[in-house]
Amino acid sequence: MEQADLFKAVVDICVLIIIAELTSTVGAKLGLPRILGPLFAGVLMGPHLLGGVIIGDAPFIEYSDLILIFSEIGAVLLLFQAGLHMKFSELMKSGVASLAVAAAGVIIPFAMGLVASTLLGYDWLVGMVIGGALSATSIAISLKCLGEFQQLGSPEAKLIIGAAVIDDVLALSIASVILSIVSDPVNLRFSSMLRSIAMTLIIWFVFTAFSSRVVPWFAEYMNRLENLDPIKQNIVPLASLLICFGFAGLSGLVGLSPLVGAFMAGMAIAGSRFHDEVSEFTEHLAVLFVPLFFIMAGAQVNPSAMLTGNFLLVGVLGIVAIVSKLYGCGIPAQWFLKDKEKGMRVGYGMISRGEIGLVISSMGVTYGIITAEVYVALVVVIFITTMLPPLLLKKSYVNDPTCVLPDYMRKGTTPLGETSKTDQH
Amino acid sequence: MEQADLFKAVVDICVLIIIAELTSTVGAKLGLPRILGPLFAGVLMGPHLLGGVIIGDAPFIEYSDLILIFSEIGAVLLLFQAGLHMKFSELMKSGVASLAVAAAGVIIPFAMGLVASTLLGYDWLVGMVIGGALSATSIAISLKCLGEFQQLGSPEAKLIIGAAVIDDVLALSIASVILSIVSDPVNLRFSSMLRSIAMTLIIWFVFTAFSSRVVPWFAEYMNRLENLDPIKQNIVPLASLLICFGFAGLSGLVGLSPLVGAFMAGMAIAGSRFHDEVSEFTEHLAVLFVPLFFIMAGAQVNPSAMLTGNFLLVGVLGIVAIVSKLYGCGIPAQWFLKDKEKGMRVGYGMISRGEIGLVISSMGVTYGIITAEVYVALVVVIFITTMLPPLLLKKSYVNDPTCVLPDYMRKGTTPLGETSKTDQH
Repeated sequence: MEQADLFKAVVDICVLIIIAELTSTVGAKLGLPRILGPLFAGVLMGPHLLGGVIIGDAPFIEYSDLILIFSEIGAVLLLFQAGLHMKFSELMKSGVASLAVAAAGVIIPFAMGLVASTLLGYDWLVGMVIGGALSATSIAISLKCLGEFQQLGSPEAKLIIGAAVIDDVLALSIASVILSIVSDPVNLRFSSMLRSIAMTLIIWFVFTAFSSRVVPWFAEYMNRLENLDPIKQNIVPLASLLICFGFAGLSGLVGLSPLVGAFMAGMAIAGSRFHDEVSEFTEHLAVLFVPLFFIMAGAQVNPSAMLTGNFLLVGVLGIVAIVSKLYGCGIPAQWFLKDKEKGMRVGYGMISRGEIGLVISSMGVTYGIITAEVYVALVVVIFITTMLPPLLLKKSYVNDPTCVLPDYMRKGTTPLGETSKTDQH
Repeated sequence: MEQADLFKAVVDICVLIIIAELTSTVGAKLGLPRILGPLFAGVLMGPHLLGGVIIGDAPFIEYSDLILIFSEIGAVLLLFQAGLHMKFSELMKSGVASLAVAAAGVIIPFAMGLVASTLLGYDWLVGMVIGGALSATSIAISLKCLGEFQQLGSPEAKLIIGAAVIDDVLALSIASVILSIVSDPVNLRFSSMLRSIAMTLIIWFVFTAFSSRVVPWFAEYMNRLENLDPIKQNIVPLASLLICFGFAGLSGLVGLSPLVGAFMAGMAIAGSRFHDEVSEFTEHLAVLFVPLFFIMAGAQVNPSAMLTGNFLLVGVLGIVAIVSKLYGCGIPAQWFLKDKEKGMRVGYGMISRGEIGLVISSMGVTYGIITAEVYVALVVVIFITTMLPPLLLKKSYVNDPTCVLPDYMRKGTTPLGETSKTDQH
């Protein structure tokens, strides 16, 4: 890479992230969830719109290799951060309930997505990508909502988190199955697909249990090395990053999505006493990488295709996406929590799709399984699902007099999402 | 770049930085300056030693494109950070004294380096690279020393900082001249070289004065955009990064070293009220980039070449490097500060060479001007010069009863460098 191109790429990255942040500010003013900011910014600055405007003799934003590399690193960091929110022991505690909610919440959207798209005349392989893309809840969005409402300790929140984690692994094992089908479409059998999902789950469970013991020990060892020096270095966080990308690479090698590995690495660190340190370190780095993943997801959307898009497909998949998670997770949750409203909250919280849905959709487009039309429909549906949980959860909590909410929440003016400025100073 | 290679590259980057930090811990225990850590680690983990050990079917550390890209970004961030320490107004205040010390401190080492290497039988172009590499003080090392001694506000420190900044610009303009000679060796005239240096200085001064007005205004404007949102985003720091890499790219375009641009960008931000915010943001990012620059500088050294190296050359250049800065800066400084010991401290503080010297040396090797033998000699000499100022300054301050030093300093046990753990919590 030429030096001039490198500097241009870094400038482009800064421009894209700033525009994404401004877009999310505007979105928040309109009451939209912040995650839409980078996605919209990606569409806006994508090669089909502003990003493609020729200035001098080059496009305004050049989608160079470096931007792609940064967005891939961003996806890994994002899943690592998600993993940091969940200890293995917590996952075990929420056990059966989480597993049941997750299983229902993956199988029902997957099946409904597959059936609906087959009825609309699509190939079953396209249906699998659609079903897969609709099956994974975005834990990031759910967590941000619950944190904003200060409800992270509530039983419904714990159930949402536990279920969302298992849900991720299930959805990513579906993604692995799709990948294996693409690479060897001849020897396809339903039994081998089931076996593949089961294998993924078993490998995941064994490796997670194993790494949740070994990684904290490794971190302690690194910390002892760090303590040799009176000056604060970043050995433990860097070692965690090493594990994160090492696990991502290993999962890739055994045919899983690298994101599963990154998630496991995060979960293993979550169980160590270095959780806060690593979390902070990752957050600082994430600023330059994570938004690019969402921006790139948006940049792959051609807005003219969206306007002339398949509204029937968007409508059907939208209804499938919402109904399947709302009831697929809500009803089992009502049974476990023995409370109708709290159960529905789990349903609300699980509606949002995000990074994994986008990853599976991009994979589908990259391998030529789904057309641009279907991809755009999926992205639009994912957009829609991310908007609902904040709105639905807010309504449910505000109407519940037993919940202690932050003051501004009841007034309903502050945007959702990260910690506010005053908290940080 | 394949995904697997990308993850491997990130893992390699983490391994290299961790080893660099451990090396600098060991070095600090031995009383060596910390900057030697990443350099030694680079030699150790370079392709000629451990990094080249074949594991499986690939070398232990693969020096991939991503590592090179990260190290280039690191060099830019490093100069940006250096610029953040210096306001344009401060530079103007220290004015004549800084200019005189800087000019003497660049011209004398450059001339002595050129003459000495010509006497040793080298070509005059080689001599220019050697002179250039020996002409720039490393402001980073000087600053770290003075900060550790809590002497940053002293008159000698202000003079060191002012002189080191101008010194950087002078040395970088020498680098630009070398670059232009390499690209067009036929039309070479001494008058055109002088004109080129003068032009560089004038462009630098005008552009710095201009940007020191415009950039703070731009940052204010960005801050107003940021304030539209109650949630803290990173728009101002990201905009600063944009300016940093934009300026780096522009300097590259007009034939200057990109590092001059990065330095100017830092200086322009230093004059705004966002200095602390940008500084903190850059520091967090720097962790993943800056050490790689020093590591890569070390990795280019072949230790077997060092052992069989040209000891005469190292000895001569070492003496030239030390004497030329010590007296070249020390004597003018004695005149301006009207104090013998304080003047010598300026001389001590200016001895250390660092990033710019390494950049010029690498440039010389890359363009085939200097041989590996000369490169190794220069790197060794730069190694040596970084060790002296901490030791000499410490001795001078500890023996001065009028100086208030931190307690542990007089005991002489704590390593030099960054803020200590207790300061950060």
